[in-house]
Amino acid sequence: MDFWQVLRERRSSRQFKEAAVEENKLIKVLEAAALAPSPANRQPWEFVVVRNQELKMRIFDASNKAREHLFRVSGWRWLGKYRVDFLKQASVLVAVVGDPEKTGADRLFPGRGEGYQHACAAAVQNMLLAAQAQGLGSLWFSLYDHKEMADLLRLGQNKEVLAIVCLGYSMDDTPRPPKQDVQGKIRFMD
Amino acid sequence: MDFWQVLRERRSSRQFKEAAVEENKLIKVLEAAALAPSPANRQPWEFVVVRNQELKMRIFDASNKAREHLFRVSGWRWLGKYRVDFLKQASVLVAVVGDPEKTGADRLFPGRGEGYQHACAAAVQNMLLAAQAQGLGSLWFSLYDHKEMADLLRLGQNKEVLAIVCLGYSMDDTPRPPKQDVQGKIRFMD
Repeated sequence: MDFWQVLRERRSSRQFKEAAVEENKLIKVLEAAALAPSPANRQPWEFVVVRNQELKMRIFDASNKAREHLFRVSGWRWLGKYRVDFLKQASVLVAVVGDPEKTGADRLFPGRGEGYQHACAAAVQNMLLAAQAQGLGSLWFSLYDHKEMADLLRLGQNKEVLAIVCLGYSMDDTPRPPKQDVQGKIRFMD
Repeated sequence: MDFWQVLRERRSSRQFKEAAVEENKLIKVLEAAALAPSPANRQPWEFVVVRNQELKMRIFDASNKAREHLFRVSGWRWLGKYRVDFLKQASVLVAVVGDPEKTGADRLFPGRGEGYQHACAAAVQNMLLAAQAQGLGSLWFSLYDHKEMADLLRLGQNKEVLAIVCLGYSMDDTPRPPKQDVQGKIRFMD
């Protein structure tokens, strides 16, 4: 699989077919996650794999209620229309769990200690790319109440569900959202 | 370039040769960054490219002083021995700048609004992989005072240097640090 093609063709999928994700593909996605770099090599991630339909429904319900609540407090119109059905539809949900204790020396700066989150985000990006490389669609989802999701997934104290990665065979045929030209984002200080 | 090989062979490099990174390779690294996903597609990243040796020296000095300070307050022995010479040695430093205004609906949860950081971290991971795919070494560095680095790089208000990505031809021949077995990090809730 060509690296550049994987990078270019990865996109967020919000609609999935019924077909199950094969176990070996799922394992490769998780192995890819664990290859991400982390501050002081602390590897601050864990993965909770959810394929049980009842638990997916509870995750959907919690996220959908959170969405409705956010819509009420913000009035943001897209939140009113946004559907999180992919949480019931995706073959696998992988909760990416971060451990704030396993951060690097950034914790010594007052008000900081976010390095473990960045490492987990890098792990998620590896997962999305590894999914793409195997013909799977994926979605990086984080619109839920942290406490509620930690309870649902029975996390140990202080651990956080930093992302839920939805995996499945995509049937999302909506247009790919446009990316801004990177040239306008670069400043040279030479 | 094979995707899996790039993923497996990426590692942090802390020693670089003198050879300059070619402009076209640098641009491909930045294009890769901009292909990362972001909440509500806000693309909350900007890139400051530093190849000027004097500015690299100032970034080195600031980071080295921060390191010495953290060593004094923590007594962590590795911080006393850690050398940040890669900041003067790398051919290019790319500061990855995040804009907290460009986060998603996560900001509507009290105490949150970190999505832009996660997106920038995903962009960094794409950069590291794109460097690897082009035979470049890289390092994800974040051990500096945020305010000081923002001033050095003349950032607009509220923008943050979330990472400095060092790029160059690696001559780091230290052993690759071990990764924990991912199997021990997975919990199935099926």
